[in-house]
Amino acid sequence: MPPMRNIKLTIAYDGTEFSGWQKQINAPTIQGEIEKRLELVTNSSPVTLHGAGRTDAGVHALAMVANFHSISSIILPQLHRALNSMLPMAIRILAAEEVSQDFHARFSVRSKTYIYKIETGAIQSPIHRLYQVHIPSSLSIEKMEACLNLLSGTHDFASFEAAGSRDKSITTGRGSIRTLQKAELSKTNANSFEFSFTGDGFLRHMVRNIMGTILDVGKGRTSLVDFKKIIQAKDRSAAGVTAPAHGLFLQTIRY
Amino acid sequence: MPPMRNIKLTIAYDGTEFSGWQKQINAPTIQGEIEKRLELVTNSSPVTLHGAGRTDAGVHALAMVANFHSISSIILPQLHRALNSMLPMAIRILAAEEVSQDFHARFSVRSKTYIYKIETGAIQSPIHRLYQVHIPSSLSIEKMEACLNLLSGTHDFASFEAAGSRDKSITTGRGSIRTLQKAELSKTNANSFEFSFTGDGFLRHMVRNIMGTILDVGKGRTSLVDFKKIIQAKDRSAAGVTAPAHGLFLQTIRY
Repeated sequence: MPPMRNIKLTIAYDGTEFSGWQKQINAPTIQGEIEKRLELVTNSSPVTLHGAGRTDAGVHALAMVANFHSISSIILPQLHRALNSMLPMAIRILAAEEVSQDFHARFSVRSKTYIYKIETGAIQSPIHRLYQVHIPSSLSIEKMEACLNLLSGTHDFASFEAAGSRDKSITTGRGSIRTLQKAELSKTNANSFEFSFTGDGFLRHMVRNIMGTILDVGKGRTSLVDFKKIIQAKDRSAAGVTAPAHGLFLQTIRY
Repeated sequence: MPPMRNIKLTIAYDGTEFSGWQKQINAPTIQGEIEKRLELVTNSSPVTLHGAGRTDAGVHALAMVANFHSISSIILPQLHRALNSMLPMAIRILAAEEVSQDFHARFSVRSKTYIYKIETGAIQSPIHRLYQVHIPSSLSIEKMEACLNLLSGTHDFASFEAAGSRDKSITTGRGSIRTLQKAELSKTNANSFEFSFTGDGFLRHMVRNIMGTILDVGKGRTSLVDFKKIIQAKDRSAAGVTAPAHGLFLQTIRY
């Protein structure tokens, strides 16, 4: 029998038209679209693609990582080209590499960076509407940066975890405790902001729930004192709404 | 009878889902979508919206200008808000202003600027695919800049005019002679280029036909000597293909 290969894919996608990463019956998903083409390219079925994590419907990725096992002898450049020629343009394979057997796209993750894009100003440019969330209010950068400082480091992020959604296989042992190594805000032009979060792991909806709450502080609806209390409450109902999916990008994954 | 008002609209749109500016039966167009809402907002029918020009299917605009006449007494901020609340998010009214009776969005134009966006590199980011044209080749900036220098100034641009498409009402007297006050190229990041063309008028498909031909020079398929001959030929069949619509943006119009 031919040797089993472990192949790592780096994937960019526009999440607008997909029901998220994870395969579903009767809904287009990133995992589903790629697995279907992998089965054709490697001439075997089923192929299971292990993603570094799941992104929600509408969330984008600049460099998602996933791996799959195959006994196919197809050379990597051919696999790479064939996948891109068959996939919709909204999904692009950026790289295909052979990795050691012990590499697992999810379990081997050391850290991930997500970015979240906001556009202020009274009217949003139609060109940005699919990739930036429009907030037609003025936002206090100072206060939002203070929130990011409060979130940096190791905390129990239960207040920002989607209710009843824990995937026990990932979080065993650490509950909702995570470490944010970096939580930053930068102005990308006169009306645009980019939030960046780097951490050792993210709970379901964590970035979007943090963003919903930080934007309340930026608008002056929630005070910094209350923001601190929200973290300490360890209770989802204490925090703000889940911010929209289309401002969120999985940017990089480190192994 | 209430006085006739002349109202100027500044409009941004994502052209992806539209069959261009000009109204058509059974196809969504920018003019058609806005006129339909203007009739509701001003409570009169028909309303004719005069655009500064027509953009083709798939072409975007950052600041198209149009005007219409109305006896409606609706105040401008209300008209502005009502239009945006009814229009699809892909079309945004950036400003609504009352102007003098002699203003005409098309005939009063002094100059227009179009930009054309290109992304090189082997694989295009899916996030850019609707707004930049992907050229997976390396391009000679030097040679493309030389083309732009040859195009600057007053020329007969017949080689870059869509065959059989002259709108006599616009071009009376000057045929296919136009003046490009500016034709520039800038690098917007490692893999992205932006071409910018400012002129007193543009023939149908002129920027896209120029771009198709310049890209042939950038790729090394057409020499600079031949590019010069193409201009001098004054014959559409001498030039390159029409570059795709989705890289083109109507950027600004000066009056």
